[in-house]
This record gives sequence, structure tokens and C-alpha cells, in this order.
Amino acid sequence: MSFHAIIPAGGAGTRLWPLSRASYPKFLVDLTGSGHSMLQDTVLRLAPLAASTTVVTGAAHEGAVRAQLAELAGEAGGTQSAVSGEREADVGELDVIAEPTPRNSMPAIALAAAVIARRDPEAVVGSFAADHVIEDEAAFHGAVRAAIGAAERGYVATIGITPDSPATGFGYIHEGEEIVPGVRAVRAFVEKPDAPTAERYVASGEYRWNAGMFVAKVSVLLGVLAKYHPALAAGVQAIADSWGDHEVFLREWARLEKIAIDHAIAEPLADEGGVAVVPAAMGWSDVGDYSSLYAMVDGHVGVSAGGVPQDVVAIDSPGSLVFTHSKPVVVAGVKRAIIIETQDTIFVTCREYAQSVKDVPDALERAGRNDLR
Amino acid sequence: MSFHAIIPAGGAGTRLWPLSRASYPKFLVDLTGSGHSMLQDTVLRLAPLAASTTVVTGAAHEGAVRAQLAELAGEAGGTQSAVSGEREADVGELDVIAEPTPRNSMPAIALAAAVIARRDPEAVVGSFAADHVIEDEAAFHGAVRAAIGAAERGYVATIGITPDSPATGFGYIHEGEEIVPGVRAVRAFVEKPDAPTAERYVASGEYRWNAGMFVAKVSVLLGVLAKYHPALAAGVQAIADSWGDHEVFLREWARLEKIAIDHAIAEPLADEGGVAVVPAAMGWSDVGDYSSLYAMVDGHVGVSAGGVPQDVVAIDSPGSLVFTHSKPVVVAGVKRAIIIETQDTIFVTCREYAQSVKDVPDALERAGRNDLR
Repeated sequence: MSFHAIIPAGGAGTRLWPLSRASYPKFLVDLTGSGHSMLQDTVLRLAPLAASTTVVTGAAHEGAVRAQLAELAGEAGGTQSAVSGEREADVGELDVIAEPTPRNSMPAIALAAAVIARRDPEAVVGSFAADHVIEDEAAFHGAVRAAIGAAERGYVATIGITPDSPATGFGYIHEGEEIVPGVRAVRAFVEKPDAPTAERYVASGEYRWNAGMFVAKVSVLLGVLAKYHPALAAGVQAIADSWGDHEVFLREWARLEKIAIDHAIAEPLADEGGVAVVPAAMGWSDVGDYSSLYAMVDGHVGVSAGGVPQDVVAIDSPGSLVFTHSKPVVVAGVKRAIIIETQDTIFVTCREYAQSVKDVPDALERAGRNDLR
Repeated sequence: MSFHAIIPAGGAGTRLWPLSRASYPKFLVDLTGSGHSMLQDTVLRLAPLAASTTVVTGAAHEGAVRAQLAELAGEAGGTQSAVSGEREADVGELDVIAEPTPRNSMPAIALAAAVIARRDPEAVVGSFAADHVIEDEAAFHGAVRAAIGAAERGYVATIGITPDSPATGFGYIHEGEEIVPGVRAVRAFVEKPDAPTAERYVASGEYRWNAGMFVAKVSVLLGVLAKYHPALAAGVQAIADSWGDHEVFLREWARLEKIAIDHAIAEPLADEGGVAVVPAAMGWSDVGDYSSLYAMVDGHVGVSAGGVPQDVVAIDSPGSLVFTHSKPVVVAGVKRAIIIETQDTIFVTCREYAQSVKDVPDALERAGRNDLR
């Protein structure tokens, strides 16, 4: 069997405005200063395991996605990384599917799986978000391999992140009995909890964060989908059967149910005992807002997006997070400041306001600055 | 008699870094969004009264000063102001004296006075800082006219600003008996007081802020200088006598005592009853730091230096002060923020830190960013 990666790349990430924009969402951005966008890092992280990688993105972002993948392919064809001295992993076959309209994650993943199944009906596919950070790649690879093993036994397997705090911003996975060492049954997927419930989850040791990673045989994935959502499965299959015929794609896609993979198959299948979870601690972050971005850069002033470290001078400003684009930034006497310079704007806020940044784009529209959204 | 203005233009104003730089001090900057630099505003403010205006500045700034004065002369030669519809005042004769090295205010003012005296021995001169703001020009003109009247009676006249707070950042002028309506004798110039003393000064109603404005006949000014500082007076006279001979200028200037006009003549002459003060309230500010700049722009987000008002969007950020240069600034959830974008840097601080901004240039040097001083 061979393993194929699917990367649904959507979502604007407005809590990271202006690094993440409706027109240039965070998966296209180098948030970590790695030299690669989050999408590129996701592709590279999967490269050692995946025979092919299919990115499913909105039509508006197809060009940018293709350009970033072409960049990776160019790097992989080169000799050595200038930074690490190591040869870049071979990124394998890179495919892009452009969704005519957003339909949430289930149609995107199912279509990619169905297209992969045409070439390889025995394939195992794994779906991974385009805009998450994973610091411990070895742990990630180990978890994916364990999930592939569970998938080969017929499970839809997920990777559950061992919580390091009682976060209320994620759904949780309630584990059941061990299936094989390192793999457990899933009792249930549970929604984002309130704070006391999250405390209880974490204290019990039985709950993991749901990071939206799913691994399954294409036959299992599409079979389960056909069972729970037959119309959606049939539409996806019709598109895949006439793959390359854009007219069929547009017509059938427009009829597909908008639904997330969690609701469509993971939750009902877990009730039937068909979902396995690989618990893993791997320095995962969804980098959902400036607080988590700050935590990810280790509490230091972080610089990226074209800046270099000496472009920030912080004076009496502990806990500041600064991204520069072209101008040096000096911050003095402001605690926990967040300062973001992009090509077309300068944004100043603080970590206490991190959750409210999502409202900034609407405020800009009200202020007549829709151009900055 | 005719009145001639002298504008000593020096001082870096580091508490307004990076709007005010060692290489481009605040008198060259449009801090108020008037469309003119503070120096240009000072020249324009004096234009209705002054037959000529002499700017005395450091050699390093001579070029920038000449360019700004040429701009004013060009405007005055034009027809109508596009903004106000009013004809710009005729700015009269504009002269520049470039100091080979800084010698504080007394040598600068005395030399300008001595050069003016060559043309007009009966002239009255008035010296005014290049980097102060005066909102009520009519009140200013009235005060200068009263000071000229006192000067014609033989006084060295100053204009004392009616305090609107017990500020500890200014020297004070202690008034004595009335000489003529609107003009009083000066008992003493007193140094910057501590807070309780300042409270007492303001409560007494007998004290005014010393804004460094002095008006006198050239003959009186130079005569008093010759009495208290004969070597300095002789050196200045030697330069004026051979005005145009740069060798003499360099040689004599290098020997001149470094001293401020307050210490050199105003304080000792006040003890002898030779100084008069015109008390005036005219919306004066020395714009010494970001707190006073904030107060001057009426507590609103202020924009200048090439920016336009809609280039700032403030969300949940009361009391912010923002200057843009080329990029729109969005500030969210930060109270009393100060955000300054210049051509080559972005500075973020808050009003609580306003007094400490003066230390930023040195911190930059320690951080290896001497280029940003």
C-alpha cells in the first residue's frame, strides 16, 4: 500500500490579521520564520511519508498555492539547503484541486480521496490542516505511521494531541480501550468545552485535542461516507469518474452538502467503534491567534516575513511580539505588545486583545478601509 | 524703528525620537500637520511683524534650513493658499547664519543682532525658538508688539506664558510691579521648580513660564552683553565687523563662551531691574515630549508627516497618538499608545513612557543601531 497526503487549505484566520488576510490566508504565510509558508512546511513535513500530496484550496488561492508548491519542487530539485546543510526531502508528486466554491472539509477531502483512488484503490490517505505548526517532526511521523497501521486494519484513524493546558478553543477526543500499543479506540468526539469541563477532561488523562488529522484507506473513507451521506458520496464519485471534465465538476460540486469531516463521518463512526486515535505529544499548535503565535516563538520577540532579527529593538517591553516587513521596529515601555508590519499596513495591539483581533477586519470595513481587510 | 526676528534653531529634541532626530531635529519637522515645519511656522508667525528674519542654525542643518526657507519664499511669491484661500504673509528678508560649532543661545543671538545692527543700528530684535507651537497668533502678535514697546523704552523684554498647569519642566519668571499696562518688571528668572514649588508659583499668580522669547534694541542687547561678558561681546563684534570673512568667523567663533541668553544677560539684568515681561496666554507649547504633543493635537489621533487622516484606524484605543509616513496604521485594544512611523523606522511606546523616550537613542546605539539615532 502507499500513503497519500491530502491538505485542505482554506480559512482566512482573521485572528491573525494582518498577517493572515482574506486575500492571503495564513497557510500562505511564513509565520514561524522557517523560510517556508505554513502550507509549504506542511508539505515538507509529510514528504518523508507521502507518495503524493494533494492540496485542496479555493479557486482564489489556486495560483498562490501552485506557485508555492512549484517553489518547493524547485528546492527539492536543488542540492543542499543553505540554512541546514541538509538535503530537502523529495516532495514527491504535488497536485492541486481548486474548489469552485467552499463546501467545508468533507467534500474537499472526499474528492481528493476519490481522485487518488482512481490511480490506487488500495491507497491510504491522510488529511492534515495546511496551517498548523508541529515542532517535533519525528513524533509526528511516528504518530502518522501508527495511524496508517490502524487504517490498514480498517479504522478511520485520527491523531489526538496530548493537551498541555485545559484549552477551550479545541474539540476533544475521548479515548477508549487500547487496540494495539499506541493506538486506542475513540469513544467520542466532543465539542469545544467550557473551562471547568476542559479542566476535567485534562485531569482525567482520557482526552486529547482534535487537530483534524484523519488517516484511512480510501475505500474505507469513501465507503463510510456513502453509508452516512450517500448523496455527497455519489456527487464526489461522479466528479472523480469524469475527472478533467470541468463542467461536471462545477455542476456536481454546486450540489454537494457543506459539512465538516468530523460531523460527516468521524462522530457517527466513533459511535460504532470504527475510529481509532493515536495519542501524541509533538509540539502542535494551530497558531490560532497572536497569543498562540507568541507562545510558539518561545516568548521572544519574533521576526519574520522578510525581516531579520536585528530589525527589532525592544526596550523595557517584555513579552512583545513583533513582525517586520521592511522597516526596523523599536518598541519601548509597552508590555505584551503585538506589532505587525506588513506590505501595506502597520498593526499595533496587545496580547490581552488577541481574541478580539478577529473583529478588526469588520471594523476596518466600517471605517471605509475595506482595502485592508 | 524696525523689528527683526532672530530664530536660533538648534537642539535635537530626543524626547520626540524618531520624529526628531540628531540628523533631522524637530524644528525641521511638521509635527502639527500644518503643512509646514515648526521652523517654517515660526517664520510665518513672525512675518507680519518682522522686516527680516535671521535663522541661526548648526552647519549640519544649514542646507535643510535654506531649503525650507526657500520653500516659504516660493509660497509667499505665489498667489493664494489652496487651503485657506488667504494670501500667505510676505515673509520679508530671510537670512541664515550657520554656526561652525554649537555655542548655546547667547553667541547665536548676539551675532545675529550684531549683523542686523550693521544695517540698522536702531533695530529692535526679538529671539524666538524654532520649535515651539503657538495656537493663538493674534495673542502672540499683541504680546510681541507690547514687548517691542518695552524694548523701545530700553528694556530687555520677555514674553511670559501664563501657566495652565504647575509644570516642572520649565523655568519660571517672577513678575514685579507694572511698568505700563500689560508690561511688568521682572523680579527674577527662577530655575525649573520641584512640584510643590511649582504649585506655589502657579497659585500665587505672580509667575509665568519662561519660553525663551527676548525682545530688545540691538544697542541695548549688545551693550548689556558687553557689560556682563565683554570677551564674548568683543568676539561677536569682531565677526560682525568683518562679516563675510569666513576665516575670521571660524577663528573668533571658536573662542566664544558657550552660554545661554538667560544666564548671560536676562538673569543678571533682571536683578538690576532692566528686564520687562509681557504676560500672555496664547496656546503655547514647547512640544517637548509625546505627552505635550498629544495634548497639542487635542487628544485625538494625530496624523502628519505625509499621512492623511484616514490612514489611521483606532479601535478600542482611547488616547492614542499616531503619526504615519507611508503605511496606514491600525491600533486596537491599546490605551494611550504612541505609534510613530517615519521613513526608516516604526516606533511604538505609550504616554506613560514619554519622559523616557529621550533614552531611546542611546539604547539604539547599544543595540548596534546607531543608524536609527
